[in-house]
Amino acid sequence: MKPEFDEWLSGQGPQEEVVICTRVRLARNLEGFRFAAAQDSEEAEVLTQTAEKALRPIARKFGWEWVDLAAANSIDRQVLVERHLISRELGDTDRARGVMFDDVGRASLMVNEEDHLRLQVFRSGLRLRDAWEAADGVDDEMASILPFAYSSAYGYLTSCPTNTGTGLRISVLLHLPALVASKQIETATNAIQEMNMTVRGLYGEGSQALGDLFQISNQRTLGDSEQHILESVESAVTSLLAFEHRHRDELRQKPLVVQDRAYRALGVLERARTLTSEETMTLLSRLRLGRVLHVLDAPPIEALNRIFLLTQPAHLQKRVGHPLDPHERDQHRAELVRKILAG
Amino acid sequence: MKPEFDEWLSGQGPQEEVVICTRVRLARNLEGFRFAAAQDSEEAEVLTQTAEKALRPIARKFGWEWVDLAAANSIDRQVLVERHLISRELGDTDRARGVMFDDVGRASLMVNEEDHLRLQVFRSGLRLRDAWEAADGVDDEMASILPFAYSSAYGYLTSCPTNTGTGLRISVLLHLPALVASKQIETATNAIQEMNMTVRGLYGEGSQALGDLFQISNQRTLGDSEQHILESVESAVTSLLAFEHRHRDELRQKPLVVQDRAYRALGVLERARTLTSEETMTLLSRLRLGRVLHVLDAPPIEALNRIFLLTQPAHLQKRVGHPLDPHERDQHRAELVRKILAG
Repeated sequence: MKPEFDEWLSGQGPQEEVVICTRVRLARNLEGFRFAAAQDSEEAEVLTQTAEKALRPIARKFGWEWVDLAAANSIDRQVLVERHLISRELGDTDRARGVMFDDVGRASLMVNEEDHLRLQVFRSGLRLRDAWEAADGVDDEMASILPFAYSSAYGYLTSCPTNTGTGLRISVLLHLPALVASKQIETATNAIQEMNMTVRGLYGEGSQALGDLFQISNQRTLGDSEQHILESVESAVTSLLAFEHRHRDELRQKPLVVQDRAYRALGVLERARTLTSEETMTLLSRLRLGRVLHVLDAPPIEALNRIFLLTQPAHLQKRVGHPLDPHERDQHRAELVRKILAG
Repeated sequence: MKPEFDEWLSGQGPQEEVVICTRVRLARNLEGFRFAAAQDSEEAEVLTQTAEKALRPIARKFGWEWVDLAAANSIDRQVLVERHLISRELGDTDRARGVMFDDVGRASLMVNEEDHLRLQVFRSGLRLRDAWEAADGVDDEMASILPFAYSSAYGYLTSCPTNTGTGLRISVLLHLPALVASKQIETATNAIQEMNMTVRGLYGEGSQALGDLFQISNQRTLGDSEQHILESVESAVTSLLAFEHRHRDELRQKPLVVQDRAYRALGVLERARTLTSEETMTLLSRLRLGRVLHVLDAPPIEALNRIFLLTQPAHLQKRVGHPLDPHERDQHRAELVRKILAG
């Protein structure tokens, strides 16, 4: 039976009190095709069909479903973005493209994104090596089927030079409420950036750090070995973890403040008649911290994750079966939150 | 059986959706005694005993209890302030003094306040004439027993010249959340002040307008007849009422906003672990408005009034039986609010 949550939100992995999930992404391009930005519509079509057809044996092996994104409606595409199975860019563009993914969200393969192929492997909690090995295995299988654009001088060639080389980006999604509450988050993320890491919000590039969630990923892919990238991300995340834990320990010294904030957030979620997505994320963050610091008895983390996932705009619209304007969404969101919290 | 609330908070009178209560106050002084500010301690003692003894027949008739405030402890005195049966000044001072009042809070007689006698009559809702007639009746009975300081040129003589003449102050306590929400309250209160009215907060002179509660009272007592004072207060209150109702009608056009604000306030009151008195008043105001505009099903106004009364600092301390510092009060307040709301 399919679990309720995709892998990244299952909340089962190591360091789960801080680390939501680990993602490994590999960028690969096929020889003989131009990058998406330079394609005409026919070439996009041919590339997409070629890749989909060639990779069917792999899809079968891993139980991946193929979704032709040019044929999917906008809400369904946005739902895939919210599940993190495709990027915003792949959801929004008009060209021929698609995605393959398994139904528990442990891997997805975007076809004709900025690069021809972008493989993503997700693991809940902090599991860098596990995710890397899984991605590496799939990569080997793909390489045995499709000729990848590769230069012995540069490594894997990519549409944007920042991805050239290994084509590897490792991202870790962290919940850092104590660093935010103690106003140390800027210091912390600056230090991380000095370690050549990129810090982003939940939805990647250009997105805000809502709900005290931060994505840490390696900046460079060129000139570093995969092992070195793994180690550098691991080292950056380890120091952020220590920093967050230190500030959580400080919060443990004033349990009433944390408890009051958490319970107030619960009260608002239980009672509000309209809730923006941003406020919902902020309130969920307070509840999550309250649960982790054991100052709040309920609701279970699983209910928080359900709210987190299902109150995103496309999930809400999918649920009611038709588009909603932002005000309607805010009302439906509040209603759904009340329902989930009421059990 | 004694009702749960004193008269002023019983919420039964005319215009109860805006007017909390009407209060009529008469200032009287005894011939042959100096005002409190000029008394030595012996004179204060003699005055207090003289008044208490002379007025016993009236106290018996109306069922008034006598409380010697010099002998009462500080929390008990503060409870009487919070019940509005005595002024803050009478509670805080050191001199001999006392108060008589009935156990449903329809009248109180402060002895050796700024004036020797200050009679207060309370009626819930807007009941100016009713309150005035009751006060006038008690005044006649007192005058038949005690010689009042009176000048044929000025009328009743008082410690502060602003009370000289009729010695009559009529106050109406109004809940004006729509004027506050629409930022029209300043315009409204300025207009009222132009009508020679004083605008104050819940606890009288110098107190802030917490919980959107405003006390309107006549500025002048000298040179006006009682009838004229009654009419001028009535006219000022009538125009404020109309102004508040107009803005409530505007709020009715956006029920979701009012409902959301009210339910959020309820959520915070139900869940917070620490609540200041100010915040509690603000949240109660939102609930009261939500109830009056029928966008909120529960809790009953009676529960709101119970919170309003019982979460005041002295009532809280009386309840636990010992003094509490402000932080402890905020925690006890939040606990009591949760208890009352849970029914």
